[in-house]
Amino acid sequence: MNRKTYHFFCLLFVFCFHTLIQAQEHPKLILTKQGVEAIRAKLGTVPLFDASLSKIKDEVDAEIATGIHMPIPKDYSGGYTHERHKKNFLILQKSGVLFQILDDEKYAVYVRDVLMSYAEMYPTLPVHPKERSYARGKLFWQCLNDSNWLVYTSQAYDCIYDWLSKKERKKLEKDLFKPFADFISKGNPQFFNRVHNHSTWGNVALGMIALVMDDDQLLNRALYGLKVDNLSEDMKDNDGGFIKTKDQKIGFFGNLDEPFSPDGYYTEGPYYQRYAMYPFLIFGQALHNAKPELKIFEYNDGVLLKSVETLLNLTDADGEFFPINDGQKGMSYYSRELVTAVDIAYHFGGENAQLLSIAEKQDRVVLNDAGLSIAIGIKEGRSEPFLKKTVNLLDGSDGTEGGIGILRKDDMELIFKYAAQGLSHGHYDKLSFSVFEKGDEVLQDYGLARFVNIEQKGGGNYLKENTTWAKQTIAHNTLVQNETSHFQGKYEIGSKNHSVLHFFDTSDENLQLISAKEKNAYPGTEMHRTFALIMDNDYEKPYILDILKISSETNNQYDLPFYFLGQVMEVNFDYEVPKTLGQLGAANGYQHLWLEGKGQPKSKNTKLSWLNNQKFYSITMAANLQDELLFARIGANDPSFNLRRDPALIVRRKDISNTVFVSVIESHGSYSPVSEFAVNASSSVAALQVVLDTVDFTAVEIESEKGNTKLLIVSNVNASKEQKHELEIENNKYNWTGPYYFGQLKK
Amino acid sequence: MNRKTYHFFCLLFVFCFHTLIQAQEHPKLILTKQGVEAIRAKLGTVPLFDASLSKIKDEVDAEIATGIHMPIPKDYSGGYTHERHKKNFLILQKSGVLFQILDDEKYAVYVRDVLMSYAEMYPTLPVHPKERSYARGKLFWQCLNDSNWLVYTSQAYDCIYDWLSKKERKKLEKDLFKPFADFISKGNPQFFNRVHNHSTWGNVALGMIALVMDDDQLLNRALYGLKVDNLSEDMKDNDGGFIKTKDQKIGFFGNLDEPFSPDGYYTEGPYYQRYAMYPFLIFGQALHNAKPELKIFEYNDGVLLKSVETLLNLTDADGEFFPINDGQKGMSYYSRELVTAVDIAYHFGGENAQLLSIAEKQDRVVLNDAGLSIAIGIKEGRSEPFLKKTVNLLDGSDGTEGGIGILRKDDMELIFKYAAQGLSHGHYDKLSFSVFEKGDEVLQDYGLARFVNIEQKGGGNYLKENTTWAKQTIAHNTLVQNETSHFQGKYEIGSKNHSVLHFFDTSDENLQLISAKEKNAYPGTEMHRTFALIMDNDYEKPYILDILKISSETNNQYDLPFYFLGQVMEVNFDYEVPKTLGQLGAANGYQHLWLEGKGQPKSKNTKLSWLNNQKFYSITMAANLQDELLFARIGANDPSFNLRRDPALIVRRKDISNTVFVSVIESHGSYSPVSEFAVNASSSVAALQVVLDTVDFTAVEIESEKGNTKLLIVSNVNASKEQKHELEIENNKYNWTGPYYFGQLKK
Ligand SMILES: [Ca+2]
Ligand SMILES: [Ca+2]
Ligand SMILES: [Ca+2]
Ligand SMILES: [Mg+2]
Ligand SMILES: [Mg+2]
Ligand SMILES: [Mg+2]
Ligand SMILES: [Mg+2]
Repeated sequence: MNRKTYHFFCLLFVFCFHTLIQAQEHPKLILTKQGVEAIRAKLGTVPLFDASLSKIKDEVDAEIATGIHMPIPKDYSGGYTHERHKKNFLILQKSGVLFQILDDEKYAVYVRDVLMSYAEMYPTLPVHPKERSYARGKLFWQCLNDSNWLVYTSQAYDCIYDWLSKKERKKLEKDLFKPFADFISKGNPQFFNRVHNHSTWGNVALGMIALVMDDDQLLNRALYGLKVDNLSEDMKDNDGGFIKTKDQKIGFFGNLDEPFSPDGYYTEGPYYQRYAMYPFLIFGQALHNAKPELKIFEYNDGVLLKSVETLLNLTDADGEFFPINDGQKGMSYYSRELVTAVDIAYHFGGENAQLLSIAEKQDRVVLNDAGLSIAIGIKEGRSEPFLKKTVNLLDGSDGTEGGIGILRKDDMELIFKYAAQGLSHGHYDKLSFSVFEKGDEVLQDYGLARFVNIEQKGGGNYLKENTTWAKQTIAHNTLVQNETSHFQGKYEIGSKNHSVLHFFDTSDENLQLISAKEKNAYPGTEMHRTFALIMDNDYEKPYILDILKISSETNNQYDLPFYFLGQVMEVNFDYEVPKTLGQLGAANGYQHLWLEGKGQPKSKNTKLSWLNNQKFYSITMAANLQDELLFARIGANDPSFNLRRDPALIVRRKDISNTVFVSVIESHGSYSPVSEFAVNASSSVAALQVVLDTVDFTAVEIESEKGNTKLLIVSNVNASKEQKHELEIENNKYNWTGPYYFGQLKK
Repeated sequence: MNRKTYHFFCLLFVFCFHTLIQAQEHPKLILTKQGVEAIRAKLGTVPLFDASLSKIKDEVDAEIATGIHMPIPKDYSGGYTHERHKKNFLILQKSGVLFQILDDEKYAVYVRDVLMSYAEMYPTLPVHPKERSYARGKLFWQCLNDSNWLVYTSQAYDCIYDWLSKKERKKLEKDLFKPFADFISKGNPQFFNRVHNHSTWGNVALGMIALVMDDDQLLNRALYGLKVDNLSEDMKDNDGGFIKTKDQKIGFFGNLDEPFSPDGYYTEGPYYQRYAMYPFLIFGQALHNAKPELKIFEYNDGVLLKSVETLLNLTDADGEFFPINDGQKGMSYYSRELVTAVDIAYHFGGENAQLLSIAEKQDRVVLNDAGLSIAIGIKEGRSEPFLKKTVNLLDGSDGTEGGIGILRKDDMELIFKYAAQGLSHGHYDKLSFSVFEKGDEVLQDYGLARFVNIEQKGGGNYLKENTTWAKQTIAHNTLVQNETSHFQGKYEIGSKNHSVLHFFDTSDENLQLISAKEKNAYPGTEMHRTFALIMDNDYEKPYILDILKISSETNNQYDLPFYFLGQVMEVNFDYEVPKTLGQLGAANGYQHLWLEGKGQPKSKNTKLSWLNNQKFYSITMAANLQDELLFARIGANDPSFNLRRDPALIVRRKDISNTVFVSVIESHGSYSPVSEFAVNASSSVAALQVVLDTVDFTAVEIESEKGNTKLLIVSNVNASKEQKHELEIENNKYNWTGPYYFGQLKK
């Protein structure tokens, strides 16, 4: 019996035992009787809590004044009926909370009346008329959104439960909540019985209403899934993700065990982790309150609370999530989900003072014990800055499926992705990377091709360019072999593979390294990429050294793109620009790139400098004189202008099996359009070259403009920290221990 | 004898009289003996002054510690020798001031030593080796920059004048200042004897050093120009501007009389007005101090000080100048020139409390009486918000050469250009407009094609795309006839013409109108454009109505571009996107546009919606079903990536003589990537049409989504405010007085 199975049975026992002897009063989910008393006692004394309360009161009062809006569902997201029912459930939840805190019946009356209207309408509703989803809801076009509705309205119902008459409760449960819960579970097993953020919402929806109604059978379904689902194993969802794999755990615990790694990294990436955090944590809080015996926040070494800090580390300096996989740029820790998450993590996770500074930036708290607790912490001046760390976040439920490395130094952040596929929202971007400075993108990951909830853009849903462009390998700062995407762009293959960490060493903050390998993206070809973030006195800021070593059984064409953002300042090679722009290729994302220029190196180093956000950047590459240097721009084959017209420089190396791409990326200097001063506008790299490349070792020299030369040697095979190495380069011997050597070049 | 000539003689008299009896002590330019005493007495008591002083002291101390740097001139701007000599003069000026205020000889020693080094080097210097300028300097590639040097170093010399020995002064004057002054004047009459910001700097350079040296002859040359110049009348500068026109006034007074309109608008536009403000005002202050009898700040109805407020009104909500003509975007009232200008305008212009709030934003003051005065005003809490106004700024020395209209309401700003050519930095953009919201561009004016002082980009100088693209008509939001620019893109023609105001009425802030005509841009064709900025309850924000009426003797092709910034959300017409991108045309800027899509209206209205900066925008146009709708993108024929890849929608109407283009531009709603809520994402214009168009009247109907229809009638010929009109439209009579009617449509 392994650890998790053991837990499973223990929990099952405790749970059955307790429900027999317990008959709790309401509210019991997010608010508790004692919690409400504590809040009422503190009203007027905790500024951030009072301000949050007052803002929500104003919002709800204004909304109640407009009456009840109950349109017949018909729209996609962004459309009126969708946005209206979404607003309804958000306001219902808040109104319930206001009733508890302010003890003003007006809010209870509103919740009751709206829920009663739903109880009238719901039994009459057919399946939603929009047909695009693999799991259509009734109020919304997806069961996913119906589940959102239930997660929020359960809380509203909980708040007025005791205030309602028995008859009213009976009607709501019979005509609304029970059939609603059955429809999103039994009625849609392909939605409910899987491991995915969708089903997390479904499971939690059932769990929340089950706790309110004290319905053990329903709670059991929420926690462990439907016993019978008759789902075939090759079924897929709209995004091309599998519905169910063999022997997969299901239900809330399945969704908690599977996608979270022991490091608290959620395999779909930070954008969806953020989305899933709300149901995970709100249900965590509800279980903690209503079923304390489950010790949910201690489950799997406390992964639920740990995941909040992990997620905060997956943001740039502005608090915006790195747009890994399907992530919409701009989503940040200012979102309502993260307000809930941070408050809960603080309150139930040992009152980490660094979380207070995040809550201060968020400038609002949730209206319950957790929110009160964090607001008191701020009031008492206990806040400390949240220090984002250099971290290596392992992926996979047991932490063995690659990971995400984030190297940080001063204002520079490098994000290296060598993770698993990331379920259906994953991109084919093994060993890709992106770079941020002070929260601004330097080398971008494109993100997704979608305008979430903007009806004009395909109903706010994923656009077809998400598949044809954003997921493709060429859309990322990583290697493309023979113009095909990793794993042939096939989810079936990608989802079975992950990259492998070679080593990670950040013991010296001035010399941080991460190295990983990918052998499966292109069978017969191994990619091995090492990044170093180096602080050296010859350079103004930390620079990035990128060594990508390819070993293949066959000759191939290799393309390595760099999606620099900004305006080209200068290059050191000759190129021609075409009179008419054509597509760079026919498929696999290449059909979305215009070829804006084509050149070849004319020296041993290829250099491009650009200007963005008033800073200069340079990339210097060790050149093959046969390299093709391609200026590309996104936007071909984009009839609806769904894509941004962003540039890239692609290095193309043809008809070769083994090779090494080496690059240095620098941020340097600044330009002010106000003073019109240009400072340190040129790269500080004088020369860059591969001095040795064997199966065992790859060695790279970097010479600065000041004339110093540094040498980095990577041990390609043996990454042991204890291994002693000796190597002769240009008649000088280098001895060292561990996976790499870095130091002055000997002469 | 007209007003100006009269002044001229009065001044000449007063001036000659006074110099005979006056022997002033130093400093006397920007600082005065009394001023310095007042400053010293206040040290430590006026926070913003103290902070500015401390910042400058730190800067100068750090610079002095690095020693003296005197490279032989060889670079363009952005290059080391250029930037170094520029830094030298900025630090010299500051060091001189520090000597006066802090009475610390270290600063005097530094100024003396650096000036002495210049006195050693200068006599040995040939003309600058870079040959691109029509007037090469010695320290710099242009006399312009040499003049900058002298304007600043004169101030430094003034500060240490009394401290130097007579022998030292003699050497500096003999070997440095006098030959320097002669070289930029007598040595370069084509630079010195013209009306242009270049010669303003030259004139002021001579004037400043003349005042310090008490050299009347030189001062005379500064104020009234060289008597003999032997310049031919068809000579041009690098930008294609004429050097000298017939009977042109020259010298400082020539440059003050000619380019400034009575409204304080400087004909080259705000970017160059900012650049010229420094010499104008610093010399103004110097003359005020050293030659108070000239009453320079009262000259021409106080135009010098008035122009500062005019310039502040030519900024967006961020304080950035509207990029009219050759203007680099991002330049703002945070520049050092505007710090000087605002301080002087406050101190010598009646202590306008609104200027205090600008100085607060600038967060620094100049270190003299003016700076002390404004810092005291702030300290005493007298600051008031600077209220930017709806203004109509007339162009031309007598205010009869068109103008710039700025309509403002809430966060919306519309800039309408119907001015004169604007000297050699003017663009061929008659009746063009641009729109800003809260400081962000909605419909952009491209600005210039130059990266000022960034050496990598053509030595920081004007790029050839400035001529081939940025100045061309198609680069602007205005009409292009037969793919040729206004005035054939010829400065000789453009500089002789200007547009003409038809009417300007902003008596109702909810209904602001401006209307102007252009008859010379295309001989035989009259363009008449009217803008209304309308606040109407059926719309979320003020919207813009644009009526462009064309009357021509011949059939033509008309192109009307809208350079919207942001991502296309939705259009209501069908269009095709090409497989390969070709140039839109062969010349006149068209060679720089890619054709990204081509369509035709399929209803009476053409509508485009886009998203930018989290706001939605829509343009609705009254369509001809034969219109071609062209999606264009800047960037063709741009081998050095000098141009931004920005989009435009161009409406093309072919083979027609008279026509009216009518458009409504709306800002509406918002999108947050954090909440993922899209609010009011659609246009509120249901229909737009021209209901009547005759020689005398043009009438337009705008129907809102709420079902109300408004009617605007423009009187095309008679713009008198008193004129009574009667007109029948669709069987309803409209009676009104004045140049337009606006109201509910009668039914
Ligand atoms: Ca950011
Ligand atoms: Ca004139
Ligand atoms: Ca701005
Ligand atoms: Mg991606
Ligand atoms: Mg991504
Ligand atoms: Mg322009
Ligand atoms: Mg412009």
